[in-house]
Amino acid sequence: MIIVMKPNAKIESIKQVLAIIEEKGLKAHISDGAEVTIIGVIGDKSLLADQNIEIVDDVDRVVPVTESYKLPNKKFHPEPSVVKVGNVLIGGDQLVIMSGPCAVESKKQVLETAHAIKKAGASILRGGAYKPRTSPYAFQGLEEEGLRYMKEAREETGLPVVCEVTSLEAIESAIKYVDMLQIGARNMQNFYLLKEAGKTGLPVLLKRGLSATIEEWLNASEYIMSQGNPNVVLCERGIRTFETATRNTLDISAVPVIKEKSHLPIIVDPSHATGVRSYVKPLAMSAVAAGADGLMIETHPNPAIALSDGPQSLTFPQFETLCEELRPLAQLFKKTF
Amino acid sequence: MIIVMKPNAKIESIKQVLAIIEEKGLKAHISDGAEVTIIGVIGDKSLLADQNIEIVDDVDRVVPVTESYKLPNKKFHPEPSVVKVGNVLIGGDQLVIMSGPCAVESKKQVLETAHAIKKAGASILRGGAYKPRTSPYAFQGLEEEGLRYMKEAREETGLPVVCEVTSLEAIESAIKYVDMLQIGARNMQNFYLLKEAGKTGLPVLLKRGLSATIEEWLNASEYIMSQGNPNVVLCERGIRTFETATRNTLDISAVPVIKEKSHLPIIVDPSHATGVRSYVKPLAMSAVAAGADGLMIETHPNPAIALSDGPQSLTFPQFETLCEELRPLAQLFKKTF
Amino acid sequence: MIIVMKPNAKIESIKQVLAIIEEKGLKAHISDGAEVTIIGVIGDKSLLADQNIEIVDDVDRVVPVTESYKLPNKKFHPEPSVVKVGNVLIGGDQLVIMSGPCAVESKKQVLETAHAIKKAGASILRGGAYKPRTSPYAFQGLEEEGLRYMKEAREETGLPVVCEVTSLEAIESAIKYVDMLQIGARNMQNFYLLKEAGKTGLPVLLKRGLSATIEEWLNASEYIMSQGNPNVVLCERGIRTFETATRNTLDISAVPVIKEKSHLPIIVDPSHATGVRSYVKPLAMSAVAAGADGLMIETHPNPAIALSDGPQSLTFPQFETLCEELRPLAQLFKKTF
Amino acid sequence: MIIVMKPNAKIESIKQVLAIIEEKGLKAHISDGAEVTIIGVIGDKSLLADQNIEIVDDVDRVVPVTESYKLPNKKFHPEPSVVKVGNVLIGGDQLVIMSGPCAVESKKQVLETAHAIKKAGASILRGGAYKPRTSPYAFQGLEEEGLRYMKEAREETGLPVVCEVTSLEAIESAIKYVDMLQIGARNMQNFYLLKEAGKTGLPVLLKRGLSATIEEWLNASEYIMSQGNPNVVLCERGIRTFETATRNTLDISAVPVIKEKSHLPIIVDPSHATGVRSYVKPLAMSAVAAGADGLMIETHPNPAIALSDGPQSLTFPQFETLCEELRPLAQLFKKTF
Repeated sequence: MIIVMKPNAKIESIKQVLAIIEEKGLKAHISDGAEVTIIGVIGDKSLLADQNIEIVDDVDRVVPVTESYKLPNKKFHPEPSVVKVGNVLIGGDQLVIMSGPCAVESKKQVLETAHAIKKAGASILRGGAYKPRTSPYAFQGLEEEGLRYMKEAREETGLPVVCEVTSLEAIESAIKYVDMLQIGARNMQNFYLLKEAGKTGLPVLLKRGLSATIEEWLNASEYIMSQGNPNVVLCERGIRTFETATRNTLDISAVPVIKEKSHLPIIVDPSHATGVRSYVKPLAMSAVAAGADGLMIETHPNPAIALSDGPQSLTFPQFETLCEELRPLAQLFKKTF
Repeated sequence: MIIVMKPNAKIESIKQVLAIIEEKGLKAHISDGAEVTIIGVIGDKSLLADQNIEIVDDVDRVVPVTESYKLPNKKFHPEPSVVKVGNVLIGGDQLVIMSGPCAVESKKQVLETAHAIKKAGASILRGGAYKPRTSPYAFQGLEEEGLRYMKEAREETGLPVVCEVTSLEAIESAIKYVDMLQIGARNMQNFYLLKEAGKTGLPVLLKRGLSATIEEWLNASEYIMSQGNPNVVLCERGIRTFETATRNTLDISAVPVIKEKSHLPIIVDPSHATGVRSYVKPLAMSAVAAGADGLMIETHPNPAIALSDGPQSLTFPQFETLCEELRPLAQLFKKTF
Repeated sequence: MIIVMKPNAKIESIKQVLAIIEEKGLKAHISDGAEVTIIGVIGDKSLLADQNIEIVDDVDRVVPVTESYKLPNKKFHPEPSVVKVGNVLIGGDQLVIMSGPCAVESKKQVLETAHAIKKAGASILRGGAYKPRTSPYAFQGLEEEGLRYMKEAREETGLPVVCEVTSLEAIESAIKYVDMLQIGARNMQNFYLLKEAGKTGLPVLLKRGLSATIEEWLNASEYIMSQGNPNVVLCERGIRTFETATRNTLDISAVPVIKEKSHLPIIVDPSHATGVRSYVKPLAMSAVAAGADGLMIETHPNPAIALSDGPQSLTFPQFETLCEELRPLAQLFKKTF
Repeated sequence: MIIVMKPNAKIESIKQVLAIIEEKGLKAHISDGAEVTIIGVIGDKSLLADQNIEIVDDVDRVVPVTESYKLPNKKFHPEPSVVKVGNVLIGGDQLVIMSGPCAVESKKQVLETAHAIKKAGASILRGGAYKPRTSPYAFQGLEEEGLRYMKEAREETGLPVVCEVTSLEAIESAIKYVDMLQIGARNMQNFYLLKEAGKTGLPVLLKRGLSATIEEWLNASEYIMSQGNPNVVLCERGIRTFETATRNTLDISAVPVIKEKSHLPIIVDPSHATGVRSYVKPLAMSAVAAGADGLMIETHPNPAIALSDGPQSLTFPQFETLCEELRPLAQLFKKTF
């Protein structure tokens, strides 16, 4: 931590800062520059967490020098993590494709989808039973009934299943049926939910918040991991910008940034990122080329009547074609699927 | 709802759109333009919610013509709403000042603050007992103990109290102690929480999400109101932009926009919007001048050691000065406090 | 300037950084922290401008500690500047209202407007003769003819006039007719234009770019000032965000931020910030309450047929009412107009 | 164009809208909906450009139904355009790599670079002679001298050259030396410059503005094309968001969006988009996979002492490796280079 003083800071102000640092048993290092004085803090800066040095007189600003997150930080865990979901490994050599409908609508829909995506090459089934919808009058999901259908689909096809949870109640139901919990973008900073998801020990798919920085996203993963659960997979799904041609703006740079800053696996969801079916394929390809460990792609037996996010869902034949085109690309990047 | 077809759309595509509309018992109105055909839908468009007309062949886009929110919409409720919190009315002639610490830290701190802000002119005490913090290692709040102190402060001073809730558990505790529930920015689209808060019947202070549009914010209020609870107060607290000189960017335009689109009261929180103490006063003044019904201002007996958000908290003398300067301004805008 | 090394940086890497610093005759100050080594640079850091220390091995990042702008910086010029435009002083006790049409359309329109706004209380006439329009087919302005009408309006009313310039050609014409040059938002980083405007010695009204940070804006003013022209007035006119209820998002915090960081005057343009006539008054009021030195308000004899930005223009009676309501507010903030 | 009236709009207001439409010889189509009345305009809506229907009483909003740009619009020109720069075709089967230094610094630097990038596989040499820099004290470019070096490099290597122009003066010099003009992000809405670049007839590389929407970008290309110059190549180089881990956020979706909406070629600049050397390769790969027609990659003989943007520049060996890795990827997407 570095404390930058204002030009011509009073000696007493500098002394006050030093006193705060030393009172906590830390050491201060002073640099008297041409324009300003800078004070470096040596030692465990978390001891200063309850000190608001910013508001000491003549302090210009406080600059952190280390990242705020520890457990997901690559600096302290240089080897990439591999997260096991059922029998599927995310973060290793496999390009993991998760697919399925935005919302679970019926048993028939889920089973049909599970078979179709398995055949095409997907290895995890997704499907929402608790749907966070902008309007309270929109379809809110089948809840526990939906989870049951997902479990049946797993039993029939062997595909592990991932479902979003939106409350402690939903978590308590989900752990009976699913292989992986998903925390959605709107709940990325629902810290209570993160902790509860962490406590289950199940792998967690953590979507990036609509306007979350990468640092906040990694701090959110720290909430889950701090409960003793290292099984976190990150999912980039687009951020909010001024651009309106797509529903969100896929931050493709997040893939290499996460690979440099964290050991956690990262997958990309081009369906939510764009909201437009015809953009799903080019963005799926670009995600693989950027180094993503997997993809999440929405599919539906009949997108025209999907209860949620139909316009961005692929039909089964479209999904099959996408998988065929992904295969040589994955190979080029030394990934199997 | 208007459906815009692509140039040279095939007759069959247009017929398919018409068939979907008519199947639901709605009427379609066709305009054959110079470049494109436009189809207007007459009737209750919610009947089309499960039809994804966007992906019918040759459809260019679907344009909604009415707002997605109903209960907070001024069009259906032209008179401004007044929300009662304890004996305080928000949305009427009074400029309502809510003040108190970001986090409840001790009984002494809360009582001292309650007396000080009451004396200066505030009419509602705020204080967080459940703190959503970016880092899991930061102080997370005193929880039920903190709520108890808030209640004691109300008993001593008569000020109604507002506390943030972050889970169903927190709601269940809070209803025993507080006069108003706060939903924080990070939970604005935690729809489960919104519904549970709505069910309590208590007034709810709904902060705008970090990257929420005004339309989404009003839809979030609809979640609360749809539970039969009309007592919602909106709070603008800054949105996320690329600007870094302030923690967030106060969207001051939200005040007149809400006044035009909704009947709900709106207050402004300049403390969280800027994160910098010296900007609190000018932004508080500007909020009143823009027509806000109230303000939320963070105060602390000793900001230098506040456990949360110290750098943006005012001392009691600073708060008193602010209130004195606000008084003639409020008067000019025909508000009392 | 501070250089933060990566954890476990190699000794040779640190030596390499030190060598670069010392080669330029600067002094380095090393702090060996618990986790990382930090190197402070003492002396004129501009000597390192052609050294890309970021890419030396093991360097984590380079943190500047002083602002990049000098001439507009309050640290080196603590007294607020007052800029003289004709006989009007901006930045002093007067609340300066600039008003007029977005685009000069005819002599009659300009003269009529000049008289009407003067009567209501405005002290500077604005009007665009070179219009930067999104579409090449939209009205592009009357160019030199428009400037002539502006000059005639000044001769008739005594109001100084301000016009936007968009090229060197436009500057060369404008200096014959106007009292102040305006650099529009889209040209805020047209550095060539900034320098040419600076060279004229005329006062310059510098609008903030659509997505410019405050720091970039002040750097843009430095371009003008570096030509020996200290007469710069800043104009906040809204930034681009995801919100669509208003054309832009007025960053009201920019007023106190500029007042803290710079000595230059700042005015606010609520017309362009919102694009909606009914929001102009509340935002004009809020700007004055936040401490702005003036306002720029679009007016038109008949907004319904304005060639540019009609929907945000006020009629003369609306403008007169606004001025009447601004008067007691200005008085409260010890401003005359 | 569709005009949406407010609920319970007065008959006279509707009549007034109809009168405006009919006065221009256009036809109106009225749909009386359950909640609101909608008026469709049939005919050439540009006839209404000088009518501000938004502010007629009871009008809720005006919704355009066709895009604002014509010449770059794929609807009116379905075949992809191929732009010829020297002997290089952009937009066809070739993956076109432009490379070179951010700023031309010396003859030696440019010639060395030209040979190195040609050998590695690049087909166009880039280099800035007029540099738009945030600070007026930073290196501003060698101007005409720099252009001369670029021409010499072309003569030695046969590579066509592209240089940024920032003023009419710069254009007048550049046309004597270069094969393609570049309009930089900061000048994307410098409409004067766009027109002047258009008039030269030279191919123009149009970078996307820092906060420009795709629609505004295509309108900017219309400015160039409206001068009779169809030779425009678009370049996505990142937009500004709240994320700070990268200098800008590469909007990779812009590639498929442009491919769907326009016939113009699009290339991607991962160097400026990220500002970080280690992210250049993954983003270059992702751009090719998303369907880009080319790449712009910064290279420098010695990035450590580059006068501009060193931290994002590749060394020659790094560039060579990148080209080798791009080759099989390009092949997969049926592109040669």
